[in-house]
Amino acid sequence: MKNKAIGVFDSGLGGLTAVKELIKCLPNENIVYFGDTGRVPYGTRSKDTIIKYGAQDARFLLQHNVKMIIAACGTVSSVASDLGESLPVKFSGVLEPTALACANATKTGSVAVLGTSATINSHSYKKLLEKINPNIKVYEQDCPLFVPLVENGFTDKDDIIVKSVVERYVSQFKDTDVDTVILGCTHYPLLKAAIGEALGEKVKLIDSGYETAIYTKKLLEENNLLSTSETEGEREFYVSDTPHNFESVAGRFLGRNMKSTATRIDIEKY
Amino acid sequence: MKNKAIGVFDSGLGGLTAVKELIKCLPNENIVYFGDTGRVPYGTRSKDTIIKYGAQDARFLLQHNVKMIIAACGTVSSVASDLGESLPVKFSGVLEPTALACANATKTGSVAVLGTSATINSHSYKKLLEKINPNIKVYEQDCPLFVPLVENGFTDKDDIIVKSVVERYVSQFKDTDVDTVILGCTHYPLLKAAIGEALGEKVKLIDSGYETAIYTKKLLEENNLLSTSETEGEREFYVSDTPHNFESVAGRFLGRNMKSTATRIDIEKY
Repeated sequence: MKNKAIGVFDSGLGGLTAVKELIKCLPNENIVYFGDTGRVPYGTRSKDTIIKYGAQDARFLLQHNVKMIIAACGTVSSVASDLGESLPVKFSGVLEPTALACANATKTGSVAVLGTSATINSHSYKKLLEKINPNIKVYEQDCPLFVPLVENGFTDKDDIIVKSVVERYVSQFKDTDVDTVILGCTHYPLLKAAIGEALGEKVKLIDSGYETAIYTKKLLEENNLLSTSETEGEREFYVSDTPHNFESVAGRFLGRNMKSTATRIDIEKY
Repeated sequence: MKNKAIGVFDSGLGGLTAVKELIKCLPNENIVYFGDTGRVPYGTRSKDTIIKYGAQDARFLLQHNVKMIIAACGTVSSVASDLGESLPVKFSGVLEPTALACANATKTGSVAVLGTSATINSHSYKKLLEKINPNIKVYEQDCPLFVPLVENGFTDKDDIIVKSVVERYVSQFKDTDVDTVILGCTHYPLLKAAIGEALGEKVKLIDSGYETAIYTKKLLEENNLLSTSETEGEREFYVSDTPHNFESVAGRFLGRNMKSTATRIDIEKY
């Protein structure tokens, strides 16, 4: 059981920012990744479509005999909140680890959540943060242009397009006492420099992929499920559209050269 | 046969700009529209995924016993160019009518095509324009941020975000002799004011929805398939995601108040 892989899925390739953090944290673990590139984005779709897609993604990973599944997708974590209960393996979304880190980080007690429309409309982060700390003040902002920007390579903080979109979504938090901001979608770390510059140095950004990797390590330790391998883990990548340019595009999210290619699967069969 | 509906499909709601033109041109025709809102956008997906999705969309419309099918989608028209051959009814994409109108409109012989990545990578418009007029000079530009802008309501020509994105894609044509530009995606007419302002008054914009509506009227006339009804046609709308806010969102594309709601269907079954 210990040396089975960790299964990770996302609506597309954004979840690879979580894989990047998992590899840093748990280098010897095997990872099976599925990115639903044939149906990305999820964040503008309805609740029941997101629930259906998330369940199919998890069923695909279960075929790979994984020891744990991570929904490295802010939208699925927020909207399909019961997904873990139906699975026969350990499960984590990005929501709980990220909200806990945010509640611990704030000194002013005022925080903001940036996410897809589906994530923000679910108020998932707000509800959970208020449960952790009933005195916390939570601002919310959906950022529907962030995923298209990242997917099309618009991440340079000095690009007028990037600057003006980021400014539109976050400028409202500038003159408030918000000191902590959740990047509630695994695509958003690629806009971290631009968001950081728009908000100023005093604001701490919480990366949901990083927090989920830390939480995963703890969960596997507590359940005696850490890999016993002493060599670098193997990684397998699956996508639902043709993996054209996968190595170069995925490399941007993983922040390293990819040695792996991806295999295409038909997610509608799961 | 004559009083059967015209079937129209698109990756999402952009195709409603073509329906708007059809209603102007052929007010008494019944129309059945399918928008694949559960899998939009198509323009960043691979060739075989687009072919598969386009075929499912057409099969759904055939269930409605239509007399003709229109792929009101620049991407399907460009990439799934054989789709019409397999259908038992008359068919039109947006490609041929739009290219013909463009070739007729240019005086300088220099034109540009704006489209999704899939449309531009297929060089569909360029090849067809060069077939119509071997001396024509065709510039091509993919505009992957245009669909997300339109879908998220960013269409105001004075908005800095809209201005800077439009400027990025079209500024290269300013100091050339390009006098005609194809809006090669049915979402783009909503950015017509912004694109027109960026290019200047001398440049003519060709709207693929409008040209396809004119062509459809001609095709139905030639084949003795025009409706004999003397009353306003009926319109049915189907989508693949929850039709939340359909009336207000669809109203933006149709340019009029919607009286109809939409019905959700499972496109994966077709």
